[in-house]
Amino acid sequence: MPYVNIKITKEKTPVTVEQKQQLIAGVTNLLKDVLGKNPKTTVVVIDEVATDNWGIGGETVTERRKRGE
Amino acid sequence: MPYVNIKITKEKTPVTVEQKQQLIAGVTNLLKDVLGKNPKTTVVVIDEVATDNWGIGGETVTERRKRGE
Amino acid sequence: MPYVNIKITKEKTPVTVEQKQQLIAGVTNLLKDVLGKNPKTTVVVIDEVATDNWGIGGETVTERRKRGE
Amino acid sequence: MPYVNIKITKEKTPVTVEQKQQLIAGVTNLLKDVLGKNPKTTVVVIDEVATDNWGIGGETVTERRKRGE
Amino acid sequence: MPYVNIKITKEKTPVTVEQKQQLIAGVTNLLKDVLGKNPKTTVVVIDEVATDNWGIGGETVTERRKRGE
Amino acid sequence: MPYVNIKITKEKTPVTVEQKQQLIAGVTNLLKDVLGKNPKTTVVVIDEVATDNWGIGGETVTERRKRGE
Repeated sequence: MPYVNIKITKEKTPVTVEQKQQLIAGVTNLLKDVLGKNPKTTVVVIDEVATDNWGIGGETVTERRKRGE
Repeated sequence: MPYVNIKITKEKTPVTVEQKQQLIAGVTNLLKDVLGKNPKTTVVVIDEVATDNWGIGGETVTERRKRGE
Repeated sequence: MPYVNIKITKEKTPVTVEQKQQLIAGVTNLLKDVLGKNPKTTVVVIDEVATDNWGIGGETVTERRKRGE
Repeated sequence: MPYVNIKITKEKTPVTVEQKQQLIAGVTNLLKDVLGKNPKTTVVVIDEVATDNWGIGGETVTERRKRGE
Repeated sequence: MPYVNIKITKEKTPVTVEQKQQLIAGVTNLLKDVLGKNPKTTVVVIDEVATDNWGIGGETVTERRKRGE
Repeated sequence: MPYVNIKITKEKTPVTVEQKQQLIAGVTNLLKDVLGKNPKTTVVVIDEVATDNWGIGGETVTERRKRGE
């Protein structure tokens, strides 16, 4: 019955549907393997966040990308 | 003073403004009726999530919809 | 398949199990009635937050309670 | 290592990149000043929510705006 | 730079520190393998929620457990 | 009308009520100064998370603390 929320930045090369499926299958299996959680009721929500709206180290990811970080 | 976050999938037939109003009014009234919470400071945020970004049972909702589930 | 998170303050008179059941049943029914969502896969998580950890109007709820608000 | 999520309404005049930077820098500094948290690992995510999807007082912000509130 | 939040029910047999480490390492590796995300800045937060505070199918997990589900 | 969620680790020296008030007042003022948001309806929720439940770099904060990081 777990609920997992994955937040990632929205990049110029978008995350593909296949990659999203791999994330969802992967984290659902992880919860089954480690804690015995039932995959049927495991919910995963992926949020893609604009780099202007994501900050780390006191600045936006957009700014960091400009400097090559 | 409650805060409620409702996450639903974004479907082909979008949720209407009227339905959003019903959700907001409904959950605000529920919190007043059950717990006596003040509607004036009850905040409700609705997130509509693409079916590619929502997983259950280890796969995306998009995949499940294709199989008619 | 909705996911609902309800955050409320933790009061001296705690929320009872019955009240929690009413909140869970109420919001699940609301999503069925307004949007036709399947109750079986509707997930509701209730968070009870200490009044020292909840702020509104720039101050903690604990402070507001002291002034009778 | 804090994680901060700021949710605001999406207005007709959008929040600028500069304002987002000020929010990110401001909250990162606040956590350093008050709690000594390391800015390098402080993460801030800003969500902009449509006024139809934000409710307060039992109605959408869109409705409140129409009445001049 | 991803942020992952895992919510699970708090059971009588508590989740061990080792299991938490496996969840954190597992989801961090998944994001590196699928999307090339840097493990150094991947943040994972695990919330353990009382079964009275978790609802599915319109009732608390506590109730479901009583019926052997 | 903003909603802000601040997640920090629960340390041996707990965050004091005064520090929580400074965080709540600080972030409320920041939103007023940068975006003109009304402090009266700005909500702030602080979550204190056990270091066993917080991961960064693929391991728990508890482990990192042991190594003096």
